[in-house]
Amino acid sequence: MTNSIALLLMSHGTFAHSAMKSAELIIGKQENYETVGIDVVDDVDALEQEMMEKVESLDQSNGLIILTDIIGGTPTNLASRLLQNSTTILVSGLNLPLVLDVCMNRQMNLDSVVGSLEAAYAQGFTIRTVTDVMGGEEDEYSL
Amino acid sequence: MTNSIALLLMSHGTFAHSAMKSAELIIGKQENYETVGIDVVDDVDALEQEMMEKVESLDQSNGLIILTDIIGGTPTNLASRLLQNSTTILVSGLNLPLVLDVCMNRQMNLDSVVGSLEAAYAQGFTIRTVTDVMGGEEDEYSL
Repeated sequence: MTNSIALLLMSHGTFAHSAMKSAELIIGKQENYETVGIDVVDDVDALEQEMMEKVESLDQSNGLIILTDIIGGTPTNLASRLLQNSTTILVSGLNLPLVLDVCMNRQMNLDSVVGSLEAAYAQGFTIRTVTDVMGGEEDEYSL
Repeated sequence: MTNSIALLLMSHGTFAHSAMKSAELIIGKQENYETVGIDVVDDVDALEQEMMEKVESLDQSNGLIILTDIIGGTPTNLASRLLQNSTTILVSGLNLPLVLDVCMNRQMNLDSVVGSLEAAYAQGFTIRTVTDVMGGEEDEYSL
């Protein structure tokens, strides 16, 4: 028993894997997660089997959150096949604000984590121009 | 002359590089871009020099868009030093919907592309549960 929500990250290429590794640079090593990367040449049946084996290796007793790169592609379509019960949630738009929010709240219950994701995603987007930095201040160097 | 907006992607670890490679799996090889990955142990002065050299290698005659992983970290703080003029824009929250939107519109003028990013980002986020897939339909297999 890990006492944390299981995570599955799926994407084209190595994007999902790199996202988790980058998150771990900031918040430390994570457990109870798997990643699946999909290339153009991959066989969908073999990929589904890989996905299933990885999901079954996770402790899903606290639920499963699947993060995928983008709606409409093979990773999200394949991942949707895992939506078989109310404790599995699929979220697309995978970026570092989402991954960090999920990872830092994995000990909470599934509904609370899912409820925080939309705000974490919205707050994760900013546009800056030269006029925003004319004051010269920087954000904190938190890494 | 490339006739496309220059792109710089910056992140912790290999996340930014992987994002671009995953985008290229979907829309084909891109040009006039560079990526910078930052590890905990890196020397900030050396990183700034790497960033500067990569930026100078780009054709910025149509502007420069910098995509970074998350506000408040070294990649975004370093990238902010590049905001020296009105044709350089920094966007944080790097994900595949953002990268694809930028890449598919790089021939447009800078203001038009920047204007499309917020909507692309917002539309890139979805949450799905078992009730969303009970009809059994899948999205198109566009890859």
